[in-house]
Amino acid sequence: MENGTVNHEMETASTITIKGILSLLMQNIDEKNKKRLISLGMGDPTVYSCFHTTHVAGEAVIEALQSEKFNGYSPTVGLPQTRRAIAEYLSCDLPYNLSPDDVFVTSGCTQAIDVAVAMLARPGANILLPRPGFPIYELCATFRRLEVRYFDLLPDKGWEVDLDSIVALADRNTVGLVIINPGNPCGNVYSYQHLKKIAETADKLKVPVIADEVYGHLAFGDNPFVPMGVFGSIVPVLTLGSLSKRWIVPGWRLGWFVISDPCGMFKNPKIIERIKKYFDILGGPATFIQAAVPRIIEKTDEVFFKKTINTLKQTSDICWDMIKEIPCISCPQKPQGSMAAMIKLNLSNLEDIGDDIDFCFRLAKEESVIILPGTAVGLKNWIRITFAADPHSLKEALGRLKSFCIRHTKLMQPY
Amino acid sequence: MENGTVNHEMETASTITIKGILSLLMQNIDEKNKKRLISLGMGDPTVYSCFHTTHVAGEAVIEALQSEKFNGYSPTVGLPQTRRAIAEYLSCDLPYNLSPDDVFVTSGCTQAIDVAVAMLARPGANILLPRPGFPIYELCATFRRLEVRYFDLLPDKGWEVDLDSIVALADRNTVGLVIINPGNPCGNVYSYQHLKKIAETADKLKVPVIADEVYGHLAFGDNPFVPMGVFGSIVPVLTLGSLSKRWIVPGWRLGWFVISDPCGMFKNPKIIERIKKYFDILGGPATFIQAAVPRIIEKTDEVFFKKTINTLKQTSDICWDMIKEIPCISCPQKPQGSMAAMIKLNLSNLEDIGDDIDFCFRLAKEESVIILPGTAVGLKNWIRITFAADPHSLKEALGRLKSFCIRHTKLMQPY
Repeated sequence: MENGTVNHEMETASTITIKGILSLLMQNIDEKNKKRLISLGMGDPTVYSCFHTTHVAGEAVIEALQSEKFNGYSPTVGLPQTRRAIAEYLSCDLPYNLSPDDVFVTSGCTQAIDVAVAMLARPGANILLPRPGFPIYELCATFRRLEVRYFDLLPDKGWEVDLDSIVALADRNTVGLVIINPGNPCGNVYSYQHLKKIAETADKLKVPVIADEVYGHLAFGDNPFVPMGVFGSIVPVLTLGSLSKRWIVPGWRLGWFVISDPCGMFKNPKIIERIKKYFDILGGPATFIQAAVPRIIEKTDEVFFKKTINTLKQTSDICWDMIKEIPCISCPQKPQGSMAAMIKLNLSNLEDIGDDIDFCFRLAKEESVIILPGTAVGLKNWIRITFAADPHSLKEALGRLKSFCIRHTKLMQPY
Repeated sequence: MENGTVNHEMETASTITIKGILSLLMQNIDEKNKKRLISLGMGDPTVYSCFHTTHVAGEAVIEALQSEKFNGYSPTVGLPQTRRAIAEYLSCDLPYNLSPDDVFVTSGCTQAIDVAVAMLARPGANILLPRPGFPIYELCATFRRLEVRYFDLLPDKGWEVDLDSIVALADRNTVGLVIINPGNPCGNVYSYQHLKKIAETADKLKVPVIADEVYGHLAFGDNPFVPMGVFGSIVPVLTLGSLSKRWIVPGWRLGWFVISDPCGMFKNPKIIERIKKYFDILGGPATFIQAAVPRIIEKTDEVFFKKTINTLKQTSDICWDMIKEIPCISCPQKPQGSMAAMIKLNLSNLEDIGDDIDFCFRLAKEESVIILPGTAVGLKNWIRITFAADPHSLKEALGRLKSFCIRHTKLMQPY
């Protein structure tokens, strides 16, 4: 495949998906190259043995399956006991209690994103998305005919939201504002104060905040994880989450769409009715997996969560330390959460590399290392590195990245 | 709840879902009534002990889960081995071979319906749906802004499609034609000849046939089940199906959207690209359930399928025989497939019963028997009876239906 073709395909923003680009990169691996393929491309930790779920989770699912009580349909919004368990789980970190009725069980966080986008869409409306961000939002908006407007995250301010640009972008057709915290792709964790300011800004604009917390609790830096729902009495929050990342089971497809709105500003009977109807056309997660959720939440040991956090802390430190030693790339902030970080390319010091896509395709070909071009998440000439990898593979991949950068660094001109 | 309210809610066609109406009926059960609640309302056979899945299926899922190889993301269109297994399974009954690329794995048949509707939707377009039919189609079309036009199924001709009305309804903005075979809610199974005529009609109109075969192979009358894909070289067919009914695991949410188009009339690269992108925003079924599909298909014994068919044959016969003895209701055709039949109410001979909804609400209250009003599937003053129940409960429920009808039959006027 020629690079030209690839670039052309990627220029159409709405056609970009992370999986699509990664699969093109995979096709670019040189099979004559004897190096073992290492992917730091996707946020799926299950491919590395140091990340595996707790035995509690698998046992709960098997028990639910073997009971033969959960082979039938569940209510399309989710089993009552599953909604209750998720409501209680999330309420632990909130100044109010969610009701089971606030919780809608989804097929992973992806379906929760679609629900949020589809429920807010109406003719002429627009939604505010972070840049860099997660491309599924734009893809959903395109399919649901919702205009997308991007606000910037500020790399020099710990990837905080540029609140002024939000106010400038919004108009009376703006229907929502998306934040992803802990941050994908940036690895940031927002402070309580910054989240409060986001809530106040959204309140001023009279739009709900869609809070993507799929990486909820995966914080290992200075800022603890604060759910956006904490500010639910300032502005209605639609909280999106799943078992995927914290329990390391993204393939189980068990997520939630939650209305964190203690003052009832958003949830009126008509909207709830519309959401319920929308769930009638969704497939939803398997009933027996839903049935296992109460036990999974109740029985999972803190030790399991801490182990994951410690491993991510370790691998993000490896990433941070090694990247400092690599020429022509830099990371503006030490990762504090989630499983990925954004790295800036200094192209002017790189020879023969046109842009981030070129960088990643050549890295794949020459070093059998897969890294996501920043273009895929809205930031050209950056790259996203996933550090949810075992330390050995991560070091090996970053070592190869270093060789690649050194090899492509422009020779200094003599005086 | 007053009947007036209920009627009002139900009059808005696009707001109707089967689950919604059944839940209202459940609320109408008189708790002082000591009769055991029996539901012949929903097509979920798992609530009756005579319908349970084969041990092969559960074991395959547990094996896939315990391997710990399938906790991660699958490709959004489905695992390659799952697509291949479904392609081979369906190809057994076709005059050509489907490719794994023709198969997209969905979260139950419900998600397959949404994919078909969403992929055909464009501004100004319309889709032709059968009446009576399955209300999820209209609900999907409403959310995807696709106009719905209904053609009639003819009760006196074995619920065949009124082909003339199809031609009259279609225009150049018609994008598809839906058939459900074996039929829900009618319990019919179309002959080879009738399906061929449908294909020829769709070809004339230049629209694909969406063939909902979620009840595929569940045929026990004179006509064998013929998949619509058999006529894929006459007209492109989008085949929708799932493990739900044949394997009696509706809660596992494992379905498929299949392009049965051997001549490549429908599937061009742009359409395939668009379908793939749409799958990127869908949650999809759990990876470990997908991984179990090849073994489930390969290892399931014919004996298991035959047992289900025999049970359905037995229960549909009970239904047919007992309904003949009940005044004021009649079934125009002996059920030949699926799990339900449509029964006509003769309201002129019933005292104090306003319509089908009134009939079902009073039946629920007086006899603790739940039956779906025909209005929910587009046919006023009919009812749908699900015969996927154990023979004992079915007889008990039909006995109570008989008492109810006798009690409400108008007294004969003296000469």
